[in-house]
Amino acid sequence: MTGRHVITVERDLLADAQSQAANVRESMTARGTLVVNVMASPGAGKTTLLAATADALRDQVRVAVLVGDIATDRDARRLAAHAPSVQLTTGGACHLDVGLVERGWRALGAPDVDILFVENVGNLVCPASHDLGEHLRVVLLSVAEGDDKPAKYPKAFRTSHALAITKSDLLPHVPFDVDRAVADARRIQPDLAVFEMSALTGAGLSAWCEYLIAEQQRLARGELCGPRR
Amino acid sequence: MTGRHVITVERDLLADAQSQAANVRESMTARGTLVVNVMASPGAGKTTLLAATADALRDQVRVAVLVGDIATDRDARRLAAHAPSVQLTTGGACHLDVGLVERGWRALGAPDVDILFVENVGNLVCPASHDLGEHLRVVLLSVAEGDDKPAKYPKAFRTSHALAITKSDLLPHVPFDVDRAVADARRIQPDLAVFEMSALTGAGLSAWCEYLIAEQQRLARGELCGPRR
Repeated sequence: MTGRHVITVERDLLADAQSQAANVRESMTARGTLVVNVMASPGAGKTTLLAATADALRDQVRVAVLVGDIATDRDARRLAAHAPSVQLTTGGACHLDVGLVERGWRALGAPDVDILFVENVGNLVCPASHDLGEHLRVVLLSVAEGDDKPAKYPKAFRTSHALAITKSDLLPHVPFDVDRAVADARRIQPDLAVFEMSALTGAGLSAWCEYLIAEQQRLARGELCGPRR
Repeated sequence: MTGRHVITVERDLLADAQSQAANVRESMTARGTLVVNVMASPGAGKTTLLAATADALRDQVRVAVLVGDIATDRDARRLAAHAPSVQLTTGGACHLDVGLVERGWRALGAPDVDILFVENVGNLVCPASHDLGEHLRVVLLSVAEGDDKPAKYPKAFRTSHALAITKSDLLPHVPFDVDRAVADARRIQPDLAVFEMSALTGAGLSAWCEYLIAEQQRLARGELCGPRR
């Protein structure tokens, strides 16, 4: 048994997944549904931000959420009060894949929404290598994590369209230099849109929501570019 | 090409790695070097805790650090002021493996130390599945990450000997229930030793250091059990 067999199979599987992701993206584009892949470390505030975002967007656009975790349905139960949501449980895998996203969307009843958020497994590494059929990729960085993370986990930042700096209410209590983090992130991905916010206080939430609405409108006009790699 | 080929190869590779890890552990045991695998999310405070720990232990035991990252040698440069340290860069992989640990230890000059800390890649998922030849596995959980993490990332907690709750100085500013986190973690791994501390203020650091010294002494007496799976 040589390594060649493994490499061949992995390439086939990746090609299948990429083609499936392209199909999902095309079909979601045709429905006018903006798919947003939300990536971050565990505890960066993905679920809390999505709950606050769903509340803030409620009167403007229709939103649904697929939420990925290795175990438990806690996040879907938290989100249920804010938007139609379904839990995707990977049973150990460190990232979502496009097949799980498709199944989750069908489990939600193939909803006719403007924005479908996909909350990835808490992990700043593996999810960056997997196309879920999204139009936008957003990476969250909590100020409690430290401003060195863009340089240390470059792929998550290079492949993202937006950086959401979360838990800004903690800035007085932690050593986090926002300018340094943003400069490092933009060195990796110059076109990164940046939002600084606190889902707890609501600071910065309106600019973030306006961005999402504008991107959904670009999608509806057929102006949204493909994913970054 | 069928899936069978992949499964076979993965098993062979895993068996090789497990046997290599067992060899490393045996050889480190013979030298009296306690190997401590430190796992956590990005930004949980691994490097800061190891720097403070190395300073606190300096007059009692000899310490060295191998520090894993996907990219950059920032952490090894930070640690160099506190202990002999070398950076292991995975170039994209989401966890360290025992081969990298062996190479790093040789790059450090095969040091005759009492405790060799191995700071894993920031990731609460993948590192839990890889034996690095360690005697002790420690998982860090920052209070800024939220108290729901043990239930959501169970393998990291189930396979660990100790839980270090870090950044306790932030407790007044974040919604984190220490009792809930510890109860959830002990439901997954009843024998978990728990330490609550802040590397910034030094709170709780002495109990943690006493634990490490006691474990090293158990190793020297030949009383330390194997890894948890």
